[in-house]
Amino acid sequence: MKHTLSVLVENHPGVLSKVSGLFSRRSFNIDSLAVGITEDPSVSRITIVVDGDEYIIEQVEKQLNKLVDVIKVKALEPGEFISCELTLFKVHATSSNRSEIVQIAEIFRAKIIDVSRTTLTIEFADTTERTQSLEAMLNPYGVIELVRTGTIALEKGSRLIAPSKKPE
Amino acid sequence: MKHTLSVLVENHPGVLSKVSGLFSRRSFNIDSLAVGITEDPSVSRITIVVDGDEYIIEQVEKQLNKLVDVIKVKALEPGEFISCELTLFKVHATSSNRSEIVQIAEIFRAKIIDVSRTTLTIEFADTTERTQSLEAMLNPYGVIELVRTGTIALEKGSRLIAPSKKPE
Repeated sequence: MKHTLSVLVENHPGVLSKVSGLFSRRSFNIDSLAVGITEDPSVSRITIVVDGDEYIIEQVEKQLNKLVDVIKVKALEPGEFISCELTLFKVHATSSNRSEIVQIAEIFRAKIIDVSRTTLTIEFADTTERTQSLEAMLNPYGVIELVRTGTIALEKGSRLIAPSKKPE
Repeated sequence: MKHTLSVLVENHPGVLSKVSGLFSRRSFNIDSLAVGITEDPSVSRITIVVDGDEYIIEQVEKQLNKLVDVIKVKALEPGEFISCELTLFKVHATSSNRSEIVQIAEIFRAKIIDVSRTTLTIEFADTTERTQSLEAMLNPYGVIELVRTGTIALEKGSRLIAPSKKPE
């Protein structure tokens, strides 16, 4: 089962290496990882999607909490959070099938951000499931290059993973 | 000066830890890092934005090329690539200022993906510059939580960083 962990860390060089090293040493399988600074530039948030049972997730949480630079670890409850990822697809497109591909992009509300005589580049931000659906629709045309961010997530509603400023 | 590196790696556990360890050991400052699988599930692409002069970037490229699991490293030329990032903002919003925030989101073509009595959650996929502009507009209302992916990038037009399938 897939679990999403939200990890707040001090924004120091070496933190990402320690966190990812912890996973690889224990052969925990990371599905995706995204890292970026938060509303507080001294703090980064690492979102990790990991495949494993409850026991493995508990172990990961414990080990992460032992790292000095880790401020807070939270395993997000299924159904209690919103998640999305960003993908760029470079698709093989000719004058004869370009309009078909543009129409698929429109149906998914994906953005066309570049075009050449032989390619279209499409930007798409959505859930992993919707991204897989779009990829399946584009594959027959030839996805010649693809880059994606890891999944990022926030809890639904007004709950905060580590309140830095409380809503009044 | 900021440089964007696109690194294709074998999708093995431990690769990310090796790559990020290389940066931290040499105290190279990573601005952002994004990792995800590509159109070929055995290959991941790591996009790294790093701050430094030409000499540092050359060193980084050399060191990365020495790693066994690294398939290809490419420093993207400014102006020759398209890049974007994905951010989730949880903003403090009450019934009295909610419509103002919704209007800002509309102007930026950002998506509102969650609402509670005291918050709005906004999803935004765009360049780093545009993301900073939106953040500046939202800050006065109170950004109480923020999560972002690293930047991802692809070369403009039909050029490929490592052609897996050639466009005919």
